Amino acid sequence: MAREVLVRHRAFYDAVESGDVDLMASLWVDSPSVTCVHPGAEALEGTETVLRSWTLLMANVEYIQFFLTDVQVAWPLGPDADLAVVTCTENILSGEGTESPEQFAGGKAVCTSVLVRSGGDWRFCSRHASPVLDIDPEAPQEPGMTDPA
Amino acid sequence: MAREVLVRHRAFYDAVESGDVDLMASLWVDSPSVTCVHPGAEALEGTETVLRSWTLLMANVEYIQFFLTDVQVAWPLGPDADLAVVTCTENILSGEGTESPEQFAGGKAVCTSVLVRSGGDWRFCSRHASPVLDIDPEAPQEPGMTDPA
Repeated sequence: MAREVLVRHRAFYDAVESGDVDLMASLWVDSPSVTCVHPGAEALEGTETVLRSWTLLMANVEYIQFFLTDVQVAWPLGPDADLAVVTCTENILSGEGTESPEQFAGGKAVCTSVLVRSGGDWRFCSRHASPVLDIDPEAPQEPGMTDPA
Repeated sequence: MAREVLVRHRAFYDAVESGDVDLMASLWVDSPSVTCVHPGAEALEGTETVLRSWTLLMANVEYIQFFLTDVQVAWPLGPDADLAVVTCTENILSGEGTESPEQFAGGKAVCTSVLVRSGGDWRFCSRHASPVLDIDPEAPQEPGMTDPA
Protein backbone atom coordinates (compact mmCIF):
# COMPACT_ATOMS: atom_id res chain seq x y z
CA MET A 1 0.00 0.00 0.00
CA ALA A 2 2.96 2.30 0.66
CA ARG A 3 3.84 1.85 -2.99
CA GLU A 4 0.42 3.08 -4.15
CA VAL A 5 0.73 6.15 -1.94
CA LEU A 6 4.26 6.88 -3.10
CA VAL A 7 3.26 6.55 -6.75
CA ARG A 8 0.51 9.14 -6.25
CA HIS A 9 2.83 11.35 -4.22
CA ARG A 10 5.43 11.26 -7.00
CA ALA A 11 2.72 11.88 -9.62
CA PHE A 12 2.10 15.22 -7.95
CA TYR A 13 5.65 16.33 -8.72
CA ASP A 14 5.46 14.85 -12.22
CA ALA A 15 2.37 16.99 -12.81
CA VAL A 16 4.21 20.16 -11.77
CA GLU A 17 7.32 19.26 -13.77
CA SER A 18 5.36 18.51 -16.93
CA GLY A 19 2.71 21.19 -16.46
CA ASP A 20 -0.01 18.56 -16.60
CA VAL A 21 -3.07 20.35 -15.22
CA ASP A 22 -5.36 17.34 -15.72
CA LEU A 23 -3.04 15.02 -13.84
CA MET A 24 -2.77 17.58 -11.04
CA ALA A 25 -6.57 17.88 -10.82
CA SER A 26 -6.93 14.09 -10.64
CA LEU A 27 -4.73 13.95 -7.56
CA TRP A 28 -6.84 16.07 -5.20
CA VAL A 29 -9.96 15.41 -3.18
CA ASP A 30 -12.75 17.65 -4.47
CA SER A 31 -13.85 19.59 -1.41
CA PRO A 32 -14.07 23.15 -0.08
CA SER A 33 -12.06 22.01 2.94
CA VAL A 34 -8.96 20.96 0.98
CA THR A 35 -5.97 23.05 2.08
CA CYS A 36 -2.62 23.92 0.53
CA VAL A 37 0.19 26.07 1.91
CA HIS A 38 2.89 27.19 -0.51
CA PRO A 39 6.25 28.12 1.03
CA GLY A 40 6.00 31.46 2.79
CA ALA A 41 2.34 31.94 1.90
CA GLU A 42 -0.92 31.82 3.77
CA ALA A 43 -3.22 28.81 3.48
CA LEU A 44 -5.36 28.30 0.39
CA GLU A 45 -8.71 26.60 0.88
CA GLY A 46 -10.87 24.60 -1.48
CA THR A 47 -9.89 22.43 -4.43
CA GLU A 48 -10.73 25.10 -7.02
CA THR A 49 -8.52 27.73 -5.38
CA VAL A 50 -5.70 25.25 -4.80
CA LEU A 51 -5.75 23.98 -8.40
CA ARG A 52 -5.83 27.53 -9.72
CA SER A 53 -2.66 28.32 -7.78
CA TRP A 54 -0.90 25.29 -9.27
CA THR A 55 -2.10 26.09 -12.76
CA LEU A 56 -0.73 29.62 -12.43
CA LEU A 57 2.53 28.28 -11.07
CA MET A 58 2.91 25.80 -13.93
CA ALA A 59 2.10 28.49 -16.48
CA ASN A 60 4.81 30.77 -15.09
CA VAL A 61 7.63 28.33 -14.47
CA GLU A 62 9.61 27.41 -17.55
CA TYR A 63 11.54 24.55 -16.03
CA ILE A 64 11.34 22.89 -12.66
CA GLN A 65 12.50 19.59 -11.31
CA PHE A 66 12.07 18.06 -7.87
CA PHE A 67 14.55 15.67 -6.30
CA LEU A 68 12.88 14.21 -3.26
CA THR A 69 14.83 13.02 -0.23
CA ASP A 70 13.86 11.84 3.27
CA VAL A 71 10.52 10.56 1.99
CA GLN A 72 8.56 9.00 4.85
CA VAL A 73 5.08 7.48 4.81
CA ALA A 74 3.19 7.25 8.10
CA TRP A 75 -0.11 5.47 8.80
CA PRO A 76 -1.56 7.30 11.80
CA LEU A 77 -4.76 5.23 11.78
CA GLY A 78 -3.01 1.94 11.10
CA PRO A 79 -1.74 0.20 7.96
CA ASP A 80 -5.20 -0.70 6.67
CA ALA A 81 -6.85 2.67 7.15
CA ASP A 82 -7.50 5.17 4.37
CA LEU A 83 -5.02 7.76 5.66
CA ALA A 84 -1.36 8.32 4.86
CA VAL A 85 0.86 11.23 5.87
CA VAL A 86 3.89 11.72 3.66
CA THR A 87 6.78 13.99 4.59
CA CYS A 88 9.73 14.75 2.36
CA THR A 89 12.45 17.22 1.53
CA GLU A 90 12.11 18.83 -1.88
CA ASN A 91 15.40 19.66 -3.54
CA ILE A 92 14.38 21.93 -6.36
CA LEU A 93 16.11 22.68 -9.61
CA SER A 94 14.50 25.51 -11.47
CA GLY A 95 15.17 27.18 -14.83
CA GLU A 96 17.49 30.14 -14.89
CA GLY A 97 15.65 33.37 -14.28
CA THR A 98 12.44 31.67 -13.28
CA GLU A 99 11.35 31.90 -9.70
CA SER A 100 9.00 29.43 -8.12
CA PRO A 101 7.09 29.31 -4.85
CA GLU A 102 8.81 26.02 -4.20
CA GLN A 103 12.22 27.68 -4.58
CA PHE A 104 13.59 28.98 -1.32
CA ALA A 105 16.85 28.96 0.57
CA GLY A 106 18.82 27.34 -2.19
CA GLY A 107 15.85 25.48 -3.57
CA LYS A 108 15.11 23.39 -0.52
CA ALA A 109 11.70 22.95 1.04
CA VAL A 110 10.10 20.52 3.45
CA CYS A 111 6.62 19.22 2.77
CA THR A 112 3.88 17.39 4.65
CA SER A 113 1.13 15.87 2.50
CA VAL A 114 -2.03 14.23 3.79
CA LEU A 115 -3.54 11.65 1.45
CA VAL A 116 -6.80 9.78 1.89
CA ARG A 117 -8.15 6.82 -0.08
CA SER A 118 -11.38 7.77 -1.73
CA GLY A 119 -13.12 5.54 -4.26
CA GLY A 120 -10.06 3.31 -4.48
CA ASP A 121 -7.67 6.15 -5.30
CA TRP A 122 -5.30 7.97 -2.99
CA ARG A 123 -5.82 11.72 -3.18
CA PHE A 124 -4.33 14.78 -1.53
CA CYS A 125 -6.57 16.55 0.98
CA SER A 126 -3.84 18.74 2.47
CA ARG A 127 -0.36 19.82 1.52
CA HIS A 128 1.93 22.14 3.47
CA ALA A 129 5.34 23.14 2.11
CA SER A 130 7.78 25.50 3.77
CA PRO A 131 11.19 26.91 3.07
CA VAL A 132 14.16 25.42 4.89
CA LEU A 133 15.97 28.46 6.20
CA ASP A 134 19.60 28.78 7.10
CA ILE A 135 19.40 28.50 10.88
CA ASP A 136 22.31 28.41 13.26
CA PRO A 137 21.92 25.11 15.11
CA GLU A 138 23.91 26.51 18.03
CA ALA A 139 21.60 29.45 18.63
CA PRO A 140 20.05 28.72 22.03
CA GLN A 141 17.11 31.03 21.41
CA GLU A 142 15.88 28.88 18.56
CA PRO A 143 15.82 25.42 20.10
CA GLY A 144 12.97 24.14 17.99
CA MET A 145 14.60 25.10 14.75
CA THR A 146 16.85 22.10 14.47
CA ASP A 147 16.65 18.49 15.41
CA PRO A 148 18.15 18.47 18.89
CA ALA A 149 18.78 14.73 18.69
CA MET B 1 -16.97 16.54 17.48
CA ALA B 2 -15.41 19.69 16.06
CA ARG B 3 -15.51 21.09 19.56
CA GLU B 4 -13.49 18.15 20.96
CA VAL B 5 -10.88 18.62 18.26
CA LEU B 6 -10.70 22.37 18.77
CA VAL B 7 -10.31 21.96 22.53
CA ARG B 8 -7.34 19.65 21.97
CA HIS B 9 -5.94 21.95 19.31
CA ARG B 10 -6.16 24.92 21.68
CA ALA B 11 -4.65 22.85 24.50
CA PHE B 12 -1.53 22.55 22.40
CA TYR B 13 -1.05 26.33 22.47
CA ASP B 14 -1.97 26.46 26.16
CA ALA B 15 0.81 23.94 26.80
CA VAL B 16 3.37 26.11 25.00
CA GLU B 17 2.17 29.30 26.68
CA SER B 18 2.25 27.81 30.16
CA GLY B 19 5.32 25.63 29.61
CA ASP B 20 3.34 22.55 30.57
CA VAL B 21 5.48 19.66 29.37
CA ASP B 22 3.10 16.98 30.68
CA LEU B 23 0.12 18.52 28.91
CA MET B 24 2.18 18.76 25.72
CA ALA B 25 3.18 15.09 25.98
CA SER B 26 -0.44 14.04 26.48
CA LEU B 27 -1.44 15.64 23.18
CA TRP B 28 0.70 13.57 20.82
CA VAL B 29 0.41 10.09 19.40
CA ASP B 30 3.31 7.97 20.67
CA SER B 31 4.99 6.74 17.51
CA PRO B 32 8.32 6.93 15.66
CA SER B 33 6.38 8.17 12.61
CA VAL B 34 5.03 11.33 14.26
CA THR B 35 6.30 14.40 12.42
CA CYS B 36 6.69 18.05 13.32
CA VAL B 37 8.04 20.93 11.23
CA HIS B 38 8.91 24.16 13.02
CA PRO B 39 8.92 27.32 10.89
CA GLY B 40 11.97 27.38 8.64
CA ALA B 41 13.27 24.08 9.94
CA GLU B 42 13.56 20.56 8.60
CA ALA B 43 11.15 17.85 9.70
CA LEU B 44 11.51 16.21 13.10
CA GLU B 45 10.45 12.57 13.38
CA GLY B 46 9.28 10.53 16.33
CA THR B 47 7.38 11.59 19.43
CA GLU B 48 10.48 11.68 21.62
CA THR B 49 12.36 14.01 19.28
CA VAL B 50 9.32 16.20 18.74
CA LEU B 51 8.61 16.54 22.46
CA ARG B 52 12.24 17.31 23.18
CA SER B 53 12.11 20.21 20.71
CA TRP B 54 9.01 21.63 22.42
CA THR B 55 10.53 21.19 25.86
CA LEU B 56 13.63 23.10 24.75
CA LEU B 57 11.49 25.79 23.20
CA MET B 58 9.41 26.21 26.33
CA ALA B 59 12.52 26.32 28.50
CA ASN B 60 13.99 29.11 26.39
CA VAL B 61 10.98 31.32 25.82
CA GLU B 62 10.12 33.59 28.71
CA TYR B 63 6.76 34.71 27.40
CA ILE B 64 4.74 33.65 24.42
CA GLN B 65 1.10 33.97 23.49
CA PHE B 66 -0.76 32.70 20.45
CA PHE B 67 -3.79 34.43 18.98
CA LEU B 68 -5.30 32.02 16.48
CA THR B 69 -7.26 33.19 13.47
CA ASP B 70 -8.69 31.46 10.38
CA VAL B 71 -9.08 28.21 12.31
CA GLN B 72 -10.60 25.55 10.05
CA VAL B 73 -11.36 21.92 10.84
CA ALA B 74 -11.66 19.50 7.93
CA TRP B 75 -12.85 15.88 8.02
CA PRO B 76 -11.20 14.29 4.98
CA LEU B 77 -12.59 10.82 5.78
CA GLY B 78 -16.04 12.07 6.76
CA PRO B 79 -17.53 13.53 9.94
CA ASP B 80 -17.52 10.21 11.83
CA ALA B 81 -13.99 9.12 11.03
CA ASP B 82 -11.06 9.41 13.39
CA LEU B 83 -9.22 12.03 11.37
CA ALA B 84 -9.29 15.82 11.55
CA VAL B 85 -7.04 18.30 9.76
CA VAL B 86 -6.85 21.71 11.42
CA THR B 87 -5.36 24.76 9.73
CA CYS B 88 -4.91 28.13 11.37
CA THR B 89 -2.95 31.34 11.36
CA GLU B 90 -0.85 31.87 14.48
CA ASN B 91 -0.46 35.50 15.49
CA ILE B 92 2.32 35.37 18.01
CA LEU B 93 3.17 37.74 20.81
CA SER B 94 6.48 36.97 22.40
CA GLY B 95 8.43 38.47 25.28
CA GLU B 96 10.82 41.28 24.48
CA GLY B 97 14.25 39.98 23.67
CA THR B 98 13.14 36.38 23.44
CA GLU B 99 13.12 34.75 20.07
CA SER B 100 11.00 31.77 19.26
CA PRO B 101 10.85 29.36 16.36
CA GLU B 102 7.20 30.30 16.01
CA GLN B 103 8.14 33.96 15.64
CA PHE B 104 8.71 34.99 12.06
CA ALA B 105 7.77 37.81 9.73
CA GLY B 106 6.15 39.92 12.39
CA GLY B 107 5.08 36.96 14.49
CA LYS B 108 2.79 35.34 11.98
CA ALA B 109 2.82 31.70 10.99
CA VAL B 110 0.46 29.32 9.28
CA CYS B 111 -0.01 25.83 10.64
CA THR B 112 -1.49 22.52 9.49
CA SER B 113 -2.13 19.96 12.23
CA VAL B 114 -3.27 16.38 11.69
CA LEU B 115 -5.15 14.87 14.63
CA VAL B 116 -6.38 11.31 14.97
CA ARG B 117 -8.69 9.81 17.56
CA SER B 118 -6.93 7.11 19.46
CA GLY B 119 -8.41 5.47 22.54
CA GLY B 120 -11.13 8.09 22.71
CA ASP B 121 -8.73 11.03 22.70
CA TRP B 122 -7.75 13.26 19.81
CA ARG B 123 -4.00 13.44 19.44
CA PHE B 124 -1.55 15.15 17.10
CA CYS B 125 0.27 12.87 14.67
CA SER B 126 1.65 15.64 12.46
CA ARG B 127 2.14 19.37 12.74
CA HIS B 128 3.65 21.67 10.13
CA ALA B 129 4.13 25.38 10.80
CA SER B 130 5.72 27.89 8.46
CA PRO B 131 6.50 31.58 8.40
CA VAL B 132 4.20 33.88 6.47
CA LEU B 133 6.60 35.94 4.42
CA ASP B 134 6.07 39.38 3.00
CA ILE B 135 5.33 38.51 -0.61
CA ASP B 136 4.36 40.92 -3.34
CA PRO B 137 0.98 39.66 -4.55
CA GLU B 138 1.58 41.37 -7.91
CA ALA B 139 4.76 39.48 -8.65
CA PRO B 140 3.87 37.30 -11.63
CA GLN B 141 6.78 34.94 -11.06
CA GLU B 142 5.40 33.82 -7.73
CA PRO B 143 1.82 32.96 -8.56
CA GLY B 144 1.45 30.31 -5.91
CA MET B 145 2.54 32.61 -3.14
CA THR B 146 -0.75 34.31 -2.63
CA ASP B 147 -4.34 33.34 -2.92
CA PRO B 148 -5.18 34.22 -6.53
CA ALA B 149 -8.91 34.20 -5.76
